[in-house]
Amino acid sequence: MNATAFHHAFGEKLFATLHTLSFDGLGMTRPSYSPQENAAHTLLCDVARNYGLEIRRDWAANLFLTLPGKDRAKPVVLTGSHMDTVPSGGNYDGAAGVIAGLSILCRWVRDGFLPERDTTVIATRAEESVWFPLSYVGSRTAFDLLTEKDLNTRRSDTGRTLFEHIAECGGTPQWPHTAILKPEQIDCFVELHIEQGPVLLGENAVLAVVSGICGSIRYRKAWIEGEYAHSGATPRKFRSDAVVAMADLVSTLHAYWQTLESEGHTLTLTFGVCQTDARQANFSAVAGKVSFTLDVRAQDTALLDHVDRHIQQVARTVEQRHRVKVHLGEKTGSTPALMDESLQQAALEISRELDIPALKMASGAGHDAATFANQGVPTEMLFVRNENGSHNPYEHLEIADFAAATTVLDGLLKLRAEKV
Amino acid sequence: MNATAFHHAFGEKLFATLHTLSFDGLGMTRPSYSPQENAAHTLLCDVARNYGLEIRRDWAANLFLTLPGKDRAKPVVLTGSHMDTVPSGGNYDGAAGVIAGLSILCRWVRDGFLPERDTTVIATRAEESVWFPLSYVGSRTAFDLLTEKDLNTRRSDTGRTLFEHIAECGGTPQWPHTAILKPEQIDCFVELHIEQGPVLLGENAVLAVVSGICGSIRYRKAWIEGEYAHSGATPRKFRSDAVVAMADLVSTLHAYWQTLESEGHTLTLTFGVCQTDARQANFSAVAGKVSFTLDVRAQDTALLDHVDRHIQQVARTVEQRHRVKVHLGEKTGSTPALMDESLQQAALEISRELDIPALKMASGAGHDAATFANQGVPTEMLFVRNENGSHNPYEHLEIADFAAATTVLDGLLKLRAEKV
Repeated sequence: MNATAFHHAFGEKLFATLHTLSFDGLGMTRPSYSPQENAAHTLLCDVARNYGLEIRRDWAANLFLTLPGKDRAKPVVLTGSHMDTVPSGGNYDGAAGVIAGLSILCRWVRDGFLPERDTTVIATRAEESVWFPLSYVGSRTAFDLLTEKDLNTRRSDTGRTLFEHIAECGGTPQWPHTAILKPEQIDCFVELHIEQGPVLLGENAVLAVVSGICGSIRYRKAWIEGEYAHSGATPRKFRSDAVVAMADLVSTLHAYWQTLESEGHTLTLTFGVCQTDARQANFSAVAGKVSFTLDVRAQDTALLDHVDRHIQQVARTVEQRHRVKVHLGEKTGSTPALMDESLQQAALEISRELDIPALKMASGAGHDAATFANQGVPTEMLFVRNENGSHNPYEHLEIADFAAATTVLDGLLKLRAEKV
Repeated sequence: MNATAFHHAFGEKLFATLHTLSFDGLGMTRPSYSPQENAAHTLLCDVARNYGLEIRRDWAANLFLTLPGKDRAKPVVLTGSHMDTVPSGGNYDGAAGVIAGLSILCRWVRDGFLPERDTTVIATRAEESVWFPLSYVGSRTAFDLLTEKDLNTRRSDTGRTLFEHIAECGGTPQWPHTAILKPEQIDCFVELHIEQGPVLLGENAVLAVVSGICGSIRYRKAWIEGEYAHSGATPRKFRSDAVVAMADLVSTLHAYWQTLESEGHTLTLTFGVCQTDARQANFSAVAGKVSFTLDVRAQDTALLDHVDRHIQQVARTVEQRHRVKVHLGEKTGSTPALMDESLQQAALEISRELDIPALKMASGAGHDAATFANQGVPTEMLFVRNENGSHNPYEHLEIADFAAATTVLDGLLKLRAEKV
């Protein structure tokens, strides 16, 4: 049985077991730091134990499954992802990366491959920020990047703190503590993940070698202030119509995005929320208020800055055109994370050798890999083709695609693990 | 004391008393068929009694205050409006028309003017459809136009039926009943009302002679169906973005309105409500759904039909441009009501003689006058200049403007009342 066949059989079995374990009637529900997430970790441990892998947990209950190398002092090769899901999510977001890593270590054990250095699969905790309103909890605790205040954040459903949840899941919360991961002790981190959009399907590619993780500009509490007025009794020239102003803002910035694309720039620009005030708006009144969110993502920091300046300008123009005030509110966001060039090159070469159609793309979504990259660890992500997006019960990963992508990851990790 | 001085003093006193009676801490609250509305009716009766007017109520508790004419069999001259308000409304919407009519009858009594025919001020019930989701309840009960089902409609706050509320307010609900008003027994109906928009202020006019009450086309439950998708992982060309489609629809139809205006048409076109789905929309997802309302008003039925066909066309174009479905949903609306030409002419002449700046305009808002006009009664409305719109605590009617407009109404009613 070659590598691909091994990963196919391994993946097929483990995804099926995981489905049985976590199906909630609609999709998979494994909240961050929950008994359901623990059960998935236990499943991984059972398999790891069968193959003789080392099992370790850190104080925050992140899971580390290791195939020891010849020289245990050498910087470790790391792979993995997270096992928590959004409510009624799919069977693949997060889990695919952990199962791929575990499948690779198990294949190495079966084939008697003894790496030069430790090779470890990590299952991070709490990557889905729907439960705790924090990003990358697991990877950031491992690097000791969370504050005491962060650790007192409460879970959205239980109302209990991260500290309490860690303790309940077998961790040993303590403050202060020391980092379990240190950049100088890590050779590289490679995370496999389903693509969360339709690009690979559209391009007929199985795999994407990720060039970077987009940074973002976010206006989460923006609103337009107009004036409520009688819809029948207020002529056009007397109106300060927040809906019409909003429409102009959206249309103008959408056209601007189109222009940037035609100039060769890559970004996304999304008004995800747009709503009049339910208490005051009604069908027979000109709207005096519209709230909205704006999310811009790009891999290029200079482009993000450029777009941000343009947003401010368009907001001023809309104010003048429609006699309204545009309140953008607090700006939040994140800085882009660049993936390692040599890892990208190697992954593309391996794909070519294996005849697996691959392309390069940026990740619009955030991932634990961003934490590793921003800590200076040579980092890479591989996306696997997947239908129906993610964070819903309809994620659909063909096991053949999983096996192909895992074989590329296998080759990439082997290259780093056998390095003397 | 001339007519204007009488109406000034009368209005000043009665508006002040009414304010004391109905102030809720923010504005005036006199729900339809409430003790507060009853109290306002009692105040009117007290004044009417002092001046020796006849006081009558119909089975639905509408109030009729009459100065008997020489020939009581002749068709009656009617004026008036309603006394109910929206929650925390202003002191003038509705009340101005009733107080104006009462002031005129009182002046006639003081001056010993004996009209040829009965002249009656009506205070209709339940004109504000915020309490019962029905239009023109009072005037329509008087013409026997409501169904038994209508009369079982429940009030939005108390949950009790119109039947029950009528009984509580001293009415005698019965089914079936006979019409208290018959078109052939009415010479004319003239309603004075504050303007609910800013046109008169903008044009430096005190008074508007209303040419007609606009009809409407309403889509109250329209929505755009797109597809939810990850905001970072979904490139533009793969999106079915309901917010972007909505913005296009609003901008396109707003530009169309502008074009129609430049061609000399008069109408209003309002998207009062526009909202993504609070349960699913979030800042990091392309919106899969936006609900909206669309309200179009015009005095010209052919124009309304024309606009409606154009709305359908634009909806189809938006569907194609943005890969969404536009569901307009059920269409409701009303037919326009035309005001009487000879009453308009007479009102304009009287204004000219009194040197009161007046103009002609359509009413974008609905009024009891529409019921009278559509029953074939020669009907007219006079709007008085008013600041800050209506249906809010900040309505502001200058008493001098009220007195001037009431003097025009006085002249108009006198013309009809003294007709042999």
